[in-house]
Amino acid sequence: MTRSTLSWAKTLGAMLMAAQLVVSQTANTPPPLTDAQKARVNRTVSVGYILFPGFEPLDVFGPLEILFSMSFYYNMSLALIAKEAGPVDARPPPHQMAAGAPPMDLSYMINPQVVATHTFENAPKLDLLLVPGGTGNLALAQHNDTSVERFIASRFNETEYVLSVCTGAVTLARSGILDGLRATSNKGAWVETTTVKSMTGGTVTWVPSARWVENPKVWTSSGVAAGMDMMYAFMKMYYGETNVDTLMNNIEYAPHTDASWDPFSVVHNVPGANKTRSLADCVGPVGYD
Amino acid sequence: MTRSTLSWAKTLGAMLMAAQLVVSQTANTPPPLTDAQKARVNRTVSVGYILFPGFEPLDVFGPLEILFSMSFYYNMSLALIAKEAGPVDARPPPHQMAAGAPPMDLSYMINPQVVATHTFENAPKLDLLLVPGGTGNLALAQHNDTSVERFIASRFNETEYVLSVCTGAVTLARSGILDGLRATSNKGAWVETTTVKSMTGGTVTWVPSARWVENPKVWTSSGVAAGMDMMYAFMKMYYGETNVDTLMNNIEYAPHTDASWDPFSVVHNVPGANKTRSLADCVGPVGYD
Repeated sequence: MTRSTLSWAKTLGAMLMAAQLVVSQTANTPPPLTDAQKARVNRTVSVGYILFPGFEPLDVFGPLEILFSMSFYYNMSLALIAKEAGPVDARPPPHQMAAGAPPMDLSYMINPQVVATHTFENAPKLDLLLVPGGTGNLALAQHNDTSVERFIASRFNETEYVLSVCTGAVTLARSGILDGLRATSNKGAWVETTTVKSMTGGTVTWVPSARWVENPKVWTSSGVAAGMDMMYAFMKMYYGETNVDTLMNNIEYAPHTDASWDPFSVVHNVPGANKTRSLADCVGPVGYD
Repeated sequence: MTRSTLSWAKTLGAMLMAAQLVVSQTANTPPPLTDAQKARVNRTVSVGYILFPGFEPLDVFGPLEILFSMSFYYNMSLALIAKEAGPVDARPPPHQMAAGAPPMDLSYMINPQVVATHTFENAPKLDLLLVPGGTGNLALAQHNDTSVERFIASRFNETEYVLSVCTGAVTLARSGILDGLRATSNKGAWVETTTVKSMTGGTVTWVPSARWVENPKVWTSSGVAAGMDMMYAFMKMYYGETNVDTLMNNIEYAPHTDASWDPFSVVHNVPGANKTRSLADCVGPVGYD
């Protein structure tokens, strides 16, 4: 097969190391804050993160690590929102991987649990609403349980932004809030993603190669780990300050900052994937480029 | 300042993209399993992850995402172990950042909670013991609370491996299990790390530039996100099969596979940091190099 330029990039990286090239660090002076950014800096931002049995752990705790660390700098509140308050299983409930497939019993998997603080009924007013993926959303769909979609649709107007990670985009699409918008999702679940039906009858333009996709009010990321890259870009835009750069270097994460980098669309043979660019991305500490 | 080669690497990455170079994907045939690997594949591996108030969320859920996904392929059990069973706060309790510093009240930060399933008294026999960092371990130390260290020391002989993420290495060092070994930790907490006293009087060789450090029985990673890269390398070694490669591409994480890459040691001005290599690392889907 001839689809990777990764080893070329790695070879060149090694050449760079051998040459010990050094370049100037550019001064990173951010532009002045917009009025919207100033307002966010000076208020308490209400964040809601949806949980359901079978949520993917890193879909929640990748972006949430960034939000948690940002709450050192900015006033935020956090509601972890599920059907019922209390512990929510990460272990997926029994479900089919696709219509007509045999039921899968994943009860042998390990089961970290996270505590939901609110229900769909008593969740506070939200500025930011985040929706993870995970195979648990297949189980909900197969039980015709639309409680998550109905919550999203009911809160959409009051929110400033809605963001999904991984197949959370499928849930957004079903809720109708992606009607007429561009979006992406986990590249290993592309058939599930692109065949989802909106409850309001609209259609979504699914972007086959994207680490994340931005619309004015709705951002969607590709699978699991892509949520961290989306959240870094989102926080840069949302607050317009450099605190998120500081914290990324404190949590020692070198984010992918090019939203069009998506080698996993090639790995998973997504129709229409961009196969013409390198699978590799060269990353390093933010603020040092 | 002249300490970054990141922009050079990015420029060359762009050149690679423009040239649309393609290379052959090498066949990734893993070597035959060792007896130890065969045994692990065929038994239930008992995993314990320590929690304490003020644990860093991604210190737990980065590596745990990989373990969680691996439990689809392999039989594992998981104990989340704390002083008391039940919800454990990620929000740090009041503490000083260093001896003599004013007390910090971080009660305004957001507070995801994870459910501890076991206590230090009733935790099962463990094959793998994982220890996260987080500023909560400063609070424990300032209250002369050594319950975590005593648990680690008491279970060390029965475990097959102990792994720490971020300043979890400080806890390992204090427990005595790093006496005479090489280790690393979060590069933004290097003074705290290198001045820690072992309860058993030994000394640790702290490695200033390392994404992670391997000893025969104890692995330690650098800060927060580095735990995912360590866990990928660890799972490759532990099971010796390619399932972890499959799952890394399913969770769309391109790991750093070079344990000596550590630009954050440069960012945080760690004494002895290797400043001669590129801050950038070119990463892509595993199995495609």
